Amino acid sequence: MTKTHLDRALGAQLEELRKTLLGMIDHVESMVWSAAQALTARDRQLAARVIDSDHFVDRTELEIDEACLRIFARYQPLAGDLRLVTLAMKMVTDLERMGDVAVNICERALELGDAPLLIGEDELLAMASLVREMIREARQAFARSDVDVATTVIWRDDDVDRHYLRLLAVVLARMQEDPSHVRRGIPLLSAAKALERIGDHAVNLAEGVIYLVKGKDVRHLAHPSMPPHGVG
Amino acid sequence: MTKTHLDRALGAQLEELRKTLLGMIDHVESMVWSAAQALTARDRQLAARVIDSDHFVDRTELEIDEACLRIFARYQPLAGDLRLVTLAMKMVTDLERMGDVAVNICERALELGDAPLLIGEDELLAMASLVREMIREARQAFARSDVDVATTVIWRDDDVDRHYLRLLAVVLARMQEDPSHVRRGIPLLSAAKALERIGDHAVNLAEGVIYLVKGKDVRHLAHPSMPPHGVG
Repeated sequence: MTKTHLDRALGAQLEELRKTLLGMIDHVESMVWSAAQALTARDRQLAARVIDSDHFVDRTELEIDEACLRIFARYQPLAGDLRLVTLAMKMVTDLERMGDVAVNICERALELGDAPLLIGEDELLAMASLVREMIREARQAFARSDVDVATTVIWRDDDVDRHYLRLLAVVLARMQEDPSHVRRGIPLLSAAKALERIGDHAVNLAEGVIYLVKGKDVRHLAHPSMPPHGVG
Repeated sequence: MTKTHLDRALGAQLEELRKTLLGMIDHVESMVWSAAQALTARDRQLAARVIDSDHFVDRTELEIDEACLRIFARYQPLAGDLRLVTLAMKMVTDLERMGDVAVNICERALELGDAPLLIGEDELLAMASLVREMIREARQAFARSDVDVATTVIWRDDDVDRHYLRLLAVVLARMQEDPSHVRRGIPLLSAAKALERIGDHAVNLAEGVIYLVKGKDVRHLAHPSMPPHGVG
């Protein structure tokens, strides 16, 4: 193949890679939201469906890893292309873990069974909704190479932490009021903690996008500069 | 540079990469063990030292990622070399998370302060000791490209899960007996869960070694075949 042919073939492979990654993000976002629904609505069937759908994530992870290795071997990508391929391999790891954590939430939902939640469903759904928004924004940031949106995701993480701490305080108080609440409180706290971890993974995705666009690593820095209007 | 020079230079870079990774594993192993000590011995100074030492892990992660990108760009590694470089990029992600989780354990230790643990320290240290063994074995498997040792790590994960469930049952029971135990029980459960997550990351490292040696991906398979004598 000539240089131009190679470039074009590489371009097509990278485009395919991007599409597969976006599909994987969509799938994980839907798993996370459905897991929160299953938990708050006591929907065992939904929980079982989410657990079952994790196979898709696992399979896609392996496919993307293999595609990346093929691209390395055939095209020896450089600069931005190289960053995209290595980022893809890191992103699938985060996405796979997000899928696993959504499965954990569903397992907690099954554990809780029909027992009423110790806290308002609204509180837990608000946290899930925030985390879903972070995943969506991380997706958008990746799709459009948008550093501003990626930065928003990083900032939102503090909101998730605040939600979690508030929820933790409420559940702890209920458990102390009445020890019979302990057995129901623990799976609930696990689920809330799981949502927080999913938020962390969304931050990893967003940091990856900044790295991809700027060629600059923002991991382990203080927060990148806040947009002037703040984050709603 | 001639082909031979390039090969030799690549060989030296990969050797350096291996050494840095082994050093990172050693550091993380020591963080995890010290975190468990800090928790059980109520040693705030040790907890603070572990938290502080996480900078080393963060810095090494960035260094290894950069080294991998340089190796990709300069040498376009193939086959086993390519697998090693991509594996290195995945391994540092696991190691960085393990460091973060060790930091979480230390934060729980600081939260607990001088309050007595709800369970025997031996129980928690036994779990930490098992997880430390998994990290050591994952290191050994990587250093010697030893698939058998890597397989042992994967099998040990079930033991960690059993430990965690036993501990969860005991702490839950204590919390139900006496609601004033709830506030002490929660950080303890977080710490135990954290140890379990570190075990999961050790399994990821071990699966990576099998992939490196065999060129075969064992993620998302049922457990690889058990050694005939079982795992002690």
